[in-house]
Amino acid sequence: METSELEQIDKTVKGWLRESRDNVLRKIDTRLTVNTKTSRRDLVTNIDKQNEKFLVSKIREFDPDAKILGEEGFGDKVTSSEGRVWIIDPIDGTMNFVKQRNHFAIMIALYQDGVGELGYILDVIGNRLLSGGPKLGVFDNGQPLAPIENTSLKDGLIGLSGPMVLNNDFNMVDIAEKSLGMRIYGSAGIDIISVLRGELVGYISYLKPWDFGAGKILCETAGLEITAIDGGQLGMLSSTAVLLATRNAHRDVLTIVGK
Amino acid sequence: METSELEQIDKTVKGWLRESRDNVLRKIDTRLTVNTKTSRRDLVTNIDKQNEKFLVSKIREFDPDAKILGEEGFGDKVTSSEGRVWIIDPIDGTMNFVKQRNHFAIMIALYQDGVGELGYILDVIGNRLLSGGPKLGVFDNGQPLAPIENTSLKDGLIGLSGPMVLNNDFNMVDIAEKSLGMRIYGSAGIDIISVLRGELVGYISYLKPWDFGAGKILCETAGLEITAIDGGQLGMLSSTAVLLATRNAHRDVLTIVGK
Repeated sequence: METSELEQIDKTVKGWLRESRDNVLRKIDTRLTVNTKTSRRDLVTNIDKQNEKFLVSKIREFDPDAKILGEEGFGDKVTSSEGRVWIIDPIDGTMNFVKQRNHFAIMIALYQDGVGELGYILDVIGNRLLSGGPKLGVFDNGQPLAPIENTSLKDGLIGLSGPMVLNNDFNMVDIAEKSLGMRIYGSAGIDIISVLRGELVGYISYLKPWDFGAGKILCETAGLEITAIDGGQLGMLSSTAVLLATRNAHRDVLTIVGK
Repeated sequence: METSELEQIDKTVKGWLRESRDNVLRKIDTRLTVNTKTSRRDLVTNIDKQNEKFLVSKIREFDPDAKILGEEGFGDKVTSSEGRVWIIDPIDGTMNFVKQRNHFAIMIALYQDGVGELGYILDVIGNRLLSGGPKLGVFDNGQPLAPIENTSLKDGLIGLSGPMVLNNDFNMVDIAEKSLGMRIYGSAGIDIISVLRGELVGYISYLKPWDFGAGKILCETAGLEITAIDGGQLGMLSSTAVLLATRNAHRDVLTIVGK
């Protein structure tokens, strides 16, 4: 896609996000309808659903020929990365949303034939938007993102998934011990913002396309590595343990995972 | 101490905190001088020291007869809880401060003969101050703190210390698994604010008097339980594993610790 076209889309998506954030904030103090999905820790609320419907309707109107992959299923059944695909997570970190009314994100990504074009991660309460893509660059609330130092694992804090630590999946305990400390924030979006801003040297979690779709585009544009936990390529429709990190921390983690 | 006197002190301390925050923010983008203390994860910076000196000088001027217990040692050697004792942590979460320039707190507590009178926890970047004590009540940025639901462990998120999880101290893995999820934020002040605001049902970590001094006063006033991890009383000068939580989550954690 052309840069001028992407700039136009960028402006439009930012408008949806502002409206979407306003909608969520307007309802945040109302009683939520909370349902469990695959387990007592996998939640969906009426606001997740309303927000996905809102975003799907905006995308349909703006880009009727595209496919939409949404966490809550109001988009299309997407089985191929061909064409233009929008990926949306209406509330990332739903547990945080339900229990904290804080530390959750709205995420949108646009891929063309499997190649990332635009990514958006909005920290709703912090009111911080990370946005951009390979042709536009990465922006932090509209300002060019500060360069990210290529810090190694032993010199940085790492964001991890709580369950992966408790199960010691992929030697996660060793990874945490090698670092200066682990942090557990409970939202891929919030964790990925922290890595992009240099607050964490990396992040590891089991993720679905809507969890990493925007982050993959922003991380790759910002010079971070993002792969499966074994170093394998991460396709747009993958569902796997994901490692995103500075180049040095990525190499350090792969060494420990491979032990 | 009389309520009117405490109100006067409260106004004064809030002024120190505003000035202290301004000082820290003014220097936050300068190159820090970082030194390790007991380990590579136990840090102190020039700003910790400057801020402690600043607060000690303010307290000395305001309350020359009191003793001062400061993390960085610019106060007095305090071995008894007699009289008026100020406890200060100039930067709580120094690792976060150094690596993230975010998620750290300034904390001040005032005890009289071992009884908490006033506590202050300031999230510097979030610009959120939790303040108050038994005679004034607890305030969240100047507004009365919202009532805290008495949520049980299985229905809430719990804040833990990373090292305690990795070592499975006191069955920490079981505690995390019983909850809806663990969160690791890396700063006692930030964690205690989260518990006071109902975002976490509890927090567990090894703590020193400057880590829990203010939090103990605020938590007790807000109806939370705060004890040693075995349920034992937490004295003002204790240095131990601390558990603070809603009454129900406190009982749930003690059951698991005692297994």
